[in-house]
Amino acid sequence: MQETRLDTARIRAARRVIDPIFLNTPLYRCEPLEPALGCTVSIKLETANPVRSFKGRGTEVVASLLADIGSRAVVCASAGNLGQALAWSARGRGLDVTVVASRFATAAKLDRIRALDARLELVDGDHEMARERAAAIARHDGIRLLEDSLDIETCEGAATIGLELVDTAPSFDTVLIALGGGALATGVGHVVKALAPDVEVICVQPLGAPAMTHSWRRRRVVTTDSTNTIADGVAGRCPIPAVLDDLLLVADDAVLVQEASIIAGMRMLLDHAGLVVEPSAALGVAAILEDRDRFAGRHVVTIVCGSNVDVDAYHRWVGAAPVHRS
Amino acid sequence: MQETRLDTARIRAARRVIDPIFLNTPLYRCEPLEPALGCTVSIKLETANPVRSFKGRGTEVVASLLADIGSRAVVCASAGNLGQALAWSARGRGLDVTVVASRFATAAKLDRIRALDARLELVDGDHEMARERAAAIARHDGIRLLEDSLDIETCEGAATIGLELVDTAPSFDTVLIALGGGALATGVGHVVKALAPDVEVICVQPLGAPAMTHSWRRRRVVTTDSTNTIADGVAGRCPIPAVLDDLLLVADDAVLVQEASIIAGMRMLLDHAGLVVEPSAALGVAAILEDRDRFAGRHVVTIVCGSNVDVDAYHRWVGAAPVHRS
Repeated sequence: MQETRLDTARIRAARRVIDPIFLNTPLYRCEPLEPALGCTVSIKLETANPVRSFKGRGTEVVASLLADIGSRAVVCASAGNLGQALAWSARGRGLDVTVVASRFATAAKLDRIRALDARLELVDGDHEMARERAAAIARHDGIRLLEDSLDIETCEGAATIGLELVDTAPSFDTVLIALGGGALATGVGHVVKALAPDVEVICVQPLGAPAMTHSWRRRRVVTTDSTNTIADGVAGRCPIPAVLDDLLLVADDAVLVQEASIIAGMRMLLDHAGLVVEPSAALGVAAILEDRDRFAGRHVVTIVCGSNVDVDAYHRWVGAAPVHRS
Repeated sequence: MQETRLDTARIRAARRVIDPIFLNTPLYRCEPLEPALGCTVSIKLETANPVRSFKGRGTEVVASLLADIGSRAVVCASAGNLGQALAWSARGRGLDVTVVASRFATAAKLDRIRALDARLELVDGDHEMARERAAAIARHDGIRLLEDSLDIETCEGAATIGLELVDTAPSFDTVLIALGGGALATGVGHVVKALAPDVEVICVQPLGAPAMTHSWRRRRVVTTDSTNTIADGVAGRCPIPAVLDDLLLVADDAVLVQEASIIAGMRMLLDHAGLVVEPSAALGVAAILEDRDRFAGRHVVTIVCGSNVDVDAYHRWVGAAPVHRS
């Protein structure tokens, strides 16, 4: 394939600086999901760690590098998971962290950022406004701006999931990856295409936040004016050109799913897999639900990328009456 | 210490025949639980595998041995988790499995046993009646009876959790272990006492199923006439003498907890850790909730041993209105 910004040797090196608590996450077939989905389903579970998402892989790489060069401070914009992970990785390395987030972000994520001793600044707008504010802080304070998906460390961290997938489960046909800024999709996609090129890489985004998918389909950056999805972790409007370029090289497809399918996916993962997941982590199951024929008889891996939810909202989504009982 | 029936070298050997899907399970500190519990809490998560409990470790050892000697069939009594795990381990090894369970067992567990192609026989009584029936089947058919906690392979399998605890987290003070038949407690307890003797081993049982705890306290087998607990996985009435002997050597304490504490523990694990757990897996948190002073300032590891719940019952237990919000 043409070369992405990623490099497999660098990803292997990145893996060595990541706290093992984020590595070698569970990967297992989940048969109880299969009757309703019509295909073989394996779960790569990225929630059983101190920050309940895959983001710790990337922030470990960044924080380790910053500590090595003697940096004292870093700022990022975040929907919540990156900020929480960066705060976790920075604590104990003597790094001051500022996280800029939308005031509409998931409260549980903001609470954890504060609890991990990061400075949290809220903007009265969406994630793109938080990105602008974080960049302004970095310029003003002369400190490192960590830009999710643009900064290669965030992609390399996510890409270590790909190494574990191809090392452990060489026999799957398709990997379903939540698509937001693109770090997860380009990172995992790069490794899969480099080491297991026959495996299909399918990115999944909500219909209510389709900017990167539209960009991938048109092969140029397409922005949107707003987002409307419960999948807060992937709700961007302004794709980053360099990330899109990588995504064009590694993704076989990018699909959009409805909110009802995301909620159905969350319920199925609770009822049949016993997993609490945040909406972004149900995108893969949602994609299967919307196109069972496409996946029939195939072995699909879905990356369950996070479980940080507001408990009340989660109860509202999954409801008292479970659906899709087998 | 005096010698239990277990042997650390044999446990290390057992580890090598267990499918890696059950090994090296997540072990991580869960800070969001800590404000409410008043101590440092780490979780050893045994639910992210195809059978959603730790029992696969032991059944892998048994099924591997049976396959090696050319056995064709095995029968066990089970509250559900052992039977499910044995069915999983036997499938693909050409072993016929019969599981005997109470007709009052958790329906989701029975469904999974059937789905994994085991023969399921229900008795119109409790787990002790299922044990008698399984023994009768073994005698009649001339096949291997797998007796949980009595058969050393079940203890050795569980003991591999202990190896992972002492290898990964040498700095904890206490491990809290759900106490039922005793395989988990004697297995993990043996390894901890052999390799990290300063770590306190505390077994936790429901007040509604206290037979083994009463036996441990009186240093002789005490049976009860009935059980009354939602913690189906640990609801035995007739402790096994050889298992009690081992437990007397490795447990520093055995405590009993109320049903309300078990439910509160399940809610806390959902609200603060994002984990769906079955009642037995909340016993450790329940023990801390009932005696915060005892654990204040200590680093406690709790083994989250299973997540197989009936979804409706689970929703009833954890309720719509979460408690213990921080």
